[in-house]
Amino acid sequence: MERPIEVAIVDTSASPHAAWRGIGIDRVRLDDTIWEPRRRLTITETLYSQHRLLEETGRMANFRRTAGKEAGGYVTRFYFDDSDVYKWLEAAAWAMATDPSDHLDQLIDEVVAELADAQRPDGYLNTWYSLKEPGLEWTELVRTHELYCAGHLIQAAVAHVRATGKRNLLDVAVKFANLICDTFGPEGSGKRQGTDGHEEIELALVELGRLTGELRYIDQAGYFLDARGHGLSGGDEYHQDHLPFRETSEVVGHAVRQVYLTAGAADIYAETGDPTIEAALERLWQNMVTRRMYVSGGIGSRWEGEAFGRDFELPNERAYTESCAAIGSVMWNWRMLLLRNEARYADLIETTLYNAMLPGLSLSGDRYFYQNPLQDDGNHRRRPWFECACCPPNLARTLASIGGYFATMRDDELAIQLYGRGTVSTPLPSGASAHLTIDTDYPWDGAIRITIAEDADFILSLRIPAWATGASAVVCGEAVTVNQGAYLRLERKWHTGDTIELTLPMPIRHVTAHPYIVENQGRIAVFRGPILFCLESDGGSQVDPRTATLGQADTWIARYEPALLGGVVTIAAEAFDRQLPESWSAQLYRETPLEPAATANEAFTLVPYFAWANREPGPMAVWLKMDQGE
Amino acid sequence: MERPIEVAIVDTSASPHAAWRGIGIDRVRLDDTIWEPRRRLTITETLYSQHRLLEETGRMANFRRTAGKEAGGYVTRFYFDDSDVYKWLEAAAWAMATDPSDHLDQLIDEVVAELADAQRPDGYLNTWYSLKEPGLEWTELVRTHELYCAGHLIQAAVAHVRATGKRNLLDVAVKFANLICDTFGPEGSGKRQGTDGHEEIELALVELGRLTGELRYIDQAGYFLDARGHGLSGGDEYHQDHLPFRETSEVVGHAVRQVYLTAGAADIYAETGDPTIEAALERLWQNMVTRRMYVSGGIGSRWEGEAFGRDFELPNERAYTESCAAIGSVMWNWRMLLLRNEARYADLIETTLYNAMLPGLSLSGDRYFYQNPLQDDGNHRRRPWFECACCPPNLARTLASIGGYFATMRDDELAIQLYGRGTVSTPLPSGASAHLTIDTDYPWDGAIRITIAEDADFILSLRIPAWATGASAVVCGEAVTVNQGAYLRLERKWHTGDTIELTLPMPIRHVTAHPYIVENQGRIAVFRGPILFCLESDGGSQVDPRTATLGQADTWIARYEPALLGGVVTIAAEAFDRQLPESWSAQLYRETPLEPAATANEAFTLVPYFAWANREPGPMAVWLKMDQGE
Repeated sequence: MERPIEVAIVDTSASPHAAWRGIGIDRVRLDDTIWEPRRRLTITETLYSQHRLLEETGRMANFRRTAGKEAGGYVTRFYFDDSDVYKWLEAAAWAMATDPSDHLDQLIDEVVAELADAQRPDGYLNTWYSLKEPGLEWTELVRTHELYCAGHLIQAAVAHVRATGKRNLLDVAVKFANLICDTFGPEGSGKRQGTDGHEEIELALVELGRLTGELRYIDQAGYFLDARGHGLSGGDEYHQDHLPFRETSEVVGHAVRQVYLTAGAADIYAETGDPTIEAALERLWQNMVTRRMYVSGGIGSRWEGEAFGRDFELPNERAYTESCAAIGSVMWNWRMLLLRNEARYADLIETTLYNAMLPGLSLSGDRYFYQNPLQDDGNHRRRPWFECACCPPNLARTLASIGGYFATMRDDELAIQLYGRGTVSTPLPSGASAHLTIDTDYPWDGAIRITIAEDADFILSLRIPAWATGASAVVCGEAVTVNQGAYLRLERKWHTGDTIELTLPMPIRHVTAHPYIVENQGRIAVFRGPILFCLESDGGSQVDPRTATLGQADTWIARYEPALLGGVVTIAAEAFDRQLPESWSAQLYRETPLEPAATANEAFTLVPYFAWANREPGPMAVWLKMDQGE
Repeated sequence: MERPIEVAIVDTSASPHAAWRGIGIDRVRLDDTIWEPRRRLTITETLYSQHRLLEETGRMANFRRTAGKEAGGYVTRFYFDDSDVYKWLEAAAWAMATDPSDHLDQLIDEVVAELADAQRPDGYLNTWYSLKEPGLEWTELVRTHELYCAGHLIQAAVAHVRATGKRNLLDVAVKFANLICDTFGPEGSGKRQGTDGHEEIELALVELGRLTGELRYIDQAGYFLDARGHGLSGGDEYHQDHLPFRETSEVVGHAVRQVYLTAGAADIYAETGDPTIEAALERLWQNMVTRRMYVSGGIGSRWEGEAFGRDFELPNERAYTESCAAIGSVMWNWRMLLLRNEARYADLIETTLYNAMLPGLSLSGDRYFYQNPLQDDGNHRRRPWFECACCPPNLARTLASIGGYFATMRDDELAIQLYGRGTVSTPLPSGASAHLTIDTDYPWDGAIRITIAEDADFILSLRIPAWATGASAVVCGEAVTVNQGAYLRLERKWHTGDTIELTLPMPIRHVTAHPYIVENQGRIAVFRGPILFCLESDGGSQVDPRTATLGQADTWIARYEPALLGGVVTIAAEAFDRQLPESWSAQLYRETPLEPAATANEAFTLVPYFAWANREPGPMAVWLKMDQGE
């Protein structure tokens, strides 16, 4: 099959067990009020400020010192600090695809040259081991993220080729990947056995195999997957080494590790079609979404070990819900979507992007959450950088490539997965081209008008979110049947000017949690469309989200407020604010009966959860008390 | 003042700012069904099984290797493993006071001889540094518990002298204490500056000062206290080094460290009377009991850092509530009680002993909890030992000395702090002697009959717990006024056979939590007398404590069941057991309205929380849903 090199986030165009592929990230041009402003800020500001931070914190100096161009030892703190440089390179590469810039191209080349100079003749590249622990290479895989760092280098190189066609970073990555393939292998191969304590190399090697056509990289990824569960990587749940992958059925341990692993396993499945991998992926996905996931889509309940908790262990104030884990969940679900194109994956990607990843970034675009609690007393605030700096460049690479998540395709079919004002113009695998404009204020409004911009013969599929009860569509003036949680599949000869009017009703929705999530009992979470809301006391409101009880919802009013928090829909509501009796001030427990609380109806405003902590600090909560008349 | 050497847990008999002192642990003879069986098991079984474990795990070998009597390096894992030997010595010493035994005496002497042989000529004694990191002594105070271990050695030596009069262990401790005093001191003293990452040395040095009359030890304890908050010990909340002690007002960081620190500060205050220490102690106590303590008296909300959480951060299933932290809280409150003899401290000691420390020990006496969750799915079970073995010998030393917590005294006054069947026979500081028998089934029944066994002239004070609404007393046939949360003070010439009939009514009490503890909203905890109850599904009950809603309480029946769980009062009740609708099995969140749950009245039994996890595993919860008719 002749195929264009598309700047896809993940390239499944030749994967035998992935029926679908992503479109190029440059094939979508957004003009919405959420993603495009953030994407633009990322490529015009964040890439440069993060580049400065890579220099200022010593991450680049680590490479220069490894190359012998500068004297001194390892500058930074963690053994995985190289990966921040690689994730930045990946973000910069994506930016080159959508917004090419000589200046950025030159900056990338300068960084790549530093990497190349630091690489050993045999291909090895890791500044921690070169500067701090020479001689111990490959001996501490459980702890030091050596293959994890290599994986991010490879991912960056793949993105760089796709976006620019340049191979200078790929040369570095391939030399290192070849060394890794020569070094590690199964028992009897005469090679070292081992697999990394932090997964990432698996998905990277599959992508390198796709780019280069070299099957050995895919085989090597399979080896690293197969090596898990045999005690090579800690033997514990934290490292997902407690069981062979194919036998697992619960998402456990360090959350980012777990979802990077499942993302890699999905990539391996796309190439090999191993049904035992597919079955494990399905079990793990079900366990995550039915037992161990926040209503925001966030994952990772425990600060201890940045880990998944037990079933239903989902504390709100002490939620860990690392921004990187949300990104990892999107990575995994994106690969599942490419395998099957089922709406449930796209629904979860949408939820996670808006409600679990986006809260990690300030409206100003330069402050980050590492943890994303669903309830807070006002003390949890975003910060410009972290010594453990995984999240900021992870957000950058995701935002820089965000357009690529908006659609998938196969043969002569284009499936729109996410909605936002803009255009989609892409060649399809069949050779046809799809050109369309999308006119909508989504996610603030559910009216989506799609106009065909050029005559063409293709199938247009539209995801209808599972929440979109009452969804309807008018295609070229004709009403068609729509099922929520599925795709509306429209097969016809399209003519310029044809329109599809899709309506996704957006009433205010009350969501309850499984009764086993004890602290959510008697509480609701409020959604409108895909957006999760929260109550945030910002000084202007006297309502305490811990104690206020929501009044009946029939008077609530949702409206778009262009001047608030970058432009958001708010929900005006009323609560019975039970003023805390003064007697509680010196008590933590006391005997019933309660003294009657002074109650007052108090108007207040819910705002999107992703926009919280951008105003004066104050208590915040997602789960709110409501008399449910049980 | 001439004073007898009493085998007091803490000796404040000459402390100028402690009006009260404890009685000798051998002055109380218990014949109750809770403490005496456990105390006896401790001194007849646990001391010997723990001694074997100290050998089998290599803790004793560490000393022999340090002494050069055996070849090889450090055997065990942690740098604080010496302290387990010292805590065992302390427990064994207390046992010698109440139940002297030639065999045990010899065992103690053998262990002491090993310690003495391992001690360096200059007094230094720490097997980790001698075997593993020689040359680094005193350079890693923040991390390696070097002074903490020394503190436990000193505490053991003090107990050994009090209990047996023997000075072989004291000689070791004094030599080491002198080295410590010669080594550490304030700026300008020409000594090293520093304070330990894990507090313990402070209270130990004060006790050594009391025993020996050497003020330098008390001054040294004061130095270690003053050194905190200046960045010498990590500079962080975890180590209580974020602020000078006198400026602190919140209990923070590692919970055991925090309460060992406050215990030491209370000891220093008892000697110095520094009002800024007293004020800090009061602030910290108020913060703990009104913001950061479980209803069980347990402390330490977070697995991460075994630490106090923020105000109202008191998760039930992920409660950490280390057994050692409960013991540390008792240590602190015991010292506060000696300062002031206020009932609030004794109330908290009683709650903590029954409901936070006791759950740490199995009914069989040989299984331990490290963490004590207040809700569980049935998977948290006690274990025979831990690699980090702080809790088992800590429980042993507390149980071996339990009688000492039952009364305090000053001049011609004896205050009964805890109740249980038995006798109290003790000289008073005034020279009078108090002899009395206590006839009661407390804590299962609130009828307490105290009989004077010998004519004497003293004041008898009886603690009336704050929960004892309606408490009444008849003294020699005459009703007297009783105030709860205070002491009933009876000053008269007592004659043999005089009786005091104290009645502490024990209705079933429903306790609610501060509304800011979100997961306890709409729930109650059940107490009867000082005992906290829980619902435990043990296979015999189909009630799920996560979802069951308690029925009205007027039909609940409390009764003593001698054959159950070692003999406990149970509470027979009814719950509306809302069977979880099947539709929840594949969902974690969904939109309201709830489908009606199938409900059924189901009889069930509450058991004391301290006795949970001694039957078939099943879900357990302390906080139970109840329609509170708000």
